[in-house]
Amino acid sequence: MADPGSGGALSPLQLYNRVSEQGEKVRSLKKEKAAKDEIDAAVKLLLALKVDYKNATGEDYNPGSPPTNDTPDINNGLPPASEGDDFVDPWTVQTGSAKGVDYDKLIVRFGSSKIDKDLIDRIERVTGNKAHHFLRRGIFFSHRWLQEVFNVPLVVQMTDDEKYLWKDLTIEKAYQYTIENAKDIIACGFDVNKTFILSDLEYMGMSSGFYKNVVQVQKHVTFNQVKGIFGFTDSDCIGKISFPAIQAAPSFSSSFPEIFNGRKDIQCLIPCAIDQDPYFRMTRDVAPRISYLKPALLHSTFFPALQGAQTKMSASDPNSSIFLTDTAKQIKTKINKHAFSGGKDTIEEHRKYGGNCEVDVCYMYLTFFLEDDEKLEKIKQDYTSGALLTGELKKILIETLQPMIAAHQERRKLVTEEVVKQFMTPRKLAFNF
Amino acid sequence: MADPGSGGALSPLQLYNRVSEQGEKVRSLKKEKAAKDEIDAAVKLLLALKVDYKNATGEDYNPGSPPTNDTPDINNGLPPASEGDDFVDPWTVQTGSAKGVDYDKLIVRFGSSKIDKDLIDRIERVTGNKAHHFLRRGIFFSHRWLQEVFNVPLVVQMTDDEKYLWKDLTIEKAYQYTIENAKDIIACGFDVNKTFILSDLEYMGMSSGFYKNVVQVQKHVTFNQVKGIFGFTDSDCIGKISFPAIQAAPSFSSSFPEIFNGRKDIQCLIPCAIDQDPYFRMTRDVAPRISYLKPALLHSTFFPALQGAQTKMSASDPNSSIFLTDTAKQIKTKINKHAFSGGKDTIEEHRKYGGNCEVDVCYMYLTFFLEDDEKLEKIKQDYTSGALLTGELKKILIETLQPMIAAHQERRKLVTEEVVKQFMTPRKLAFNF
Repeated sequence: MADPGSGGALSPLQLYNRVSEQGEKVRSLKKEKAAKDEIDAAVKLLLALKVDYKNATGEDYNPGSPPTNDTPDINNGLPPASEGDDFVDPWTVQTGSAKGVDYDKLIVRFGSSKIDKDLIDRIERVTGNKAHHFLRRGIFFSHRWLQEVFNVPLVVQMTDDEKYLWKDLTIEKAYQYTIENAKDIIACGFDVNKTFILSDLEYMGMSSGFYKNVVQVQKHVTFNQVKGIFGFTDSDCIGKISFPAIQAAPSFSSSFPEIFNGRKDIQCLIPCAIDQDPYFRMTRDVAPRISYLKPALLHSTFFPALQGAQTKMSASDPNSSIFLTDTAKQIKTKINKHAFSGGKDTIEEHRKYGGNCEVDVCYMYLTFFLEDDEKLEKIKQDYTSGALLTGELKKILIETLQPMIAAHQERRKLVTEEVVKQFMTPRKLAFNF
Repeated sequence: MADPGSGGALSPLQLYNRVSEQGEKVRSLKKEKAAKDEIDAAVKLLLALKVDYKNATGEDYNPGSPPTNDTPDINNGLPPASEGDDFVDPWTVQTGSAKGVDYDKLIVRFGSSKIDKDLIDRIERVTGNKAHHFLRRGIFFSHRWLQEVFNVPLVVQMTDDEKYLWKDLTIEKAYQYTIENAKDIIACGFDVNKTFILSDLEYMGMSSGFYKNVVQVQKHVTFNQVKGIFGFTDSDCIGKISFPAIQAAPSFSSSFPEIFNGRKDIQCLIPCAIDQDPYFRMTRDVAPRISYLKPALLHSTFFPALQGAQTKMSASDPNSSIFLTDTAKQIKTKINKHAFSGGKDTIEEHRKYGGNCEVDVCYMYLTFFLEDDEKLEKIKQDYTSGALLTGELKKILIETLQPMIAAHQERRKLVTEEVVKQFMTPRKLAFNF
């Protein structure tokens, strides 16, 4: 969940004004003898804003002395990346560590906060359901679980315009990918009465609300800001430069008049991989300025590549990942031959020193796909102690994935073009707004 | 009509390559013993491209020596404005001269060409109609005349998103202006079976073709280019920066699948005031790169402000222009009190030295509104000789405008919301494509 204090691309002067305003607010809450929680929350936000201010200007906040240099902050109010840090933006995720990206550092750099035990307890209380293992393990979210336990409409935005703008392909091809990807999403088991899947390229021409929200966001974000947030340059095409507004607009319920009956006040929760966060930091910054509610964020970690967390998954390299189209045999071969192992070189050494789960891709995959916490813990202990051999660990993963992927392929076969069309038709869902 | 050779925002290297290609083309036409016209046209274009190249690089084109400095040309391949030149861009038109903007200079700077006698004769031959007096006088075009004599579909783009982005108003207000302006356009007498009026804000959400064309243009124009063409800066919002693509997309017939039946090969003629030309220079540059036909342009001059061609018309200053909402009495008072006169201070002097039609706003207005060429010529001679006094000239204009505007107001009253809706509904027009 993103920190409500994280500012978006504010200039030093804007940050200064926010600190001043928040100071006022704290004083007036104290004066009114407001509830302790409320005062505490306001003080916490004040402190966070002061940190933002210091990060942006290099100086402590000093009441009555506005900053002299008001050039907008290019790092969006957040601490800059230091050397050796992982590189994470919406188009590139790179790490030099076999353990994968260091999320604790990323959380500080992105100004978000961890999903802790308190939050998970609260989610379980609210939903009356045990939290999904992705949430329990602090690694991921599951859209379907969220839809089921919260009973909410789900909107899935397929940014095929982004794909067209960034890649060397035609509009038609980008849209075709959308349809194929939609089939995989649908095959995960979403409820057609509660789910709307949209292609930007298609829905922009079907919605009376989407473009109006795009233009509103575009009016409130400057090139300086997107340069700072996304690293665009003067040589980038104007499509890329304005695209963040298209990613932002579905955060607002009025982009979907068919679903939300024209209402502007339905708040949105965006589960996304943390690399997509810059778009929504920007969105959260713009929202109040166009009288909309800020979206909340739920960040996932990245799914590691098969050959090691510091390598890359690529559609053109079949050995870089397990694909949803792989046969049982391919899964077995790929895992046995290519999955990066945390085991020792010989059985003797392995038995003696044990394996390293922190870098073992098979173990990482099991944290995603094995729901049983106890079983997972047992595997970890056995592998670490050396009781479980690499071949045995690989076998567990193979036997977990084979039926899972086969079942997905069966479900996907049932997803006809007609079913995709149903999901992608703007319409009223099974909710009343 | 814009010069087919004018390049858009090409870099020196791109211009160099175009000159080389065109040279090849001329050689092969000569080799094939092509028709003389065809060779002449190709040679003319080659010469124009060489001029563009020289303007962009400061050097003559030298075959085999590509330019070393390939930074994109910030003036769009056209000669830069010199000091004392009029300032003309899509948002500002300024001149220091009471005669108004110097169009001959502007035509050179914008790389377009004059509507000459030959072209008018050709238009008359093609249409079998006498050219409209706006065309005959080389000052303007009349959309309605064009629609009638060419019998073509007319699409009127109302850029209310542009208005929203550039002005301090809401989306709703911008759209409301569109409706009011549409009523005035409709009252001019366009045929509902041949005319489609669109609001960008509305039609973007109604068309399966518009947004796809917008994104295609956006992919092929960089920030550097729009910076060069429109003078945008890093502090401009990303809405302004990407807007030129929205102005461009209706140039392509596939933006209107309802009208053109999905066809991409219907060429477009854009009659517009010359200040809008930068948008379409850019469009003409992009068109072949996305496999579309270049739009042709027909430029109009500017309608002068009442208080003199070097002053500005402003909706907030009632005396700066005659409005379509003015009463007969207001028209009379405004012209008598505020119309900038080319007459002399006293009747005696005027009789002796005559008036100056070149700066007289009443005379300028008559060139727009008096269809009879002979009558206009007589007025010019009499005013120049001193036979016609300023008060008499003003009276002629008053008596020309009063019935014209009253008739417009009568017609406008008949334009109900229902009629506006008809014009603004995407639909098949009375043409088969």
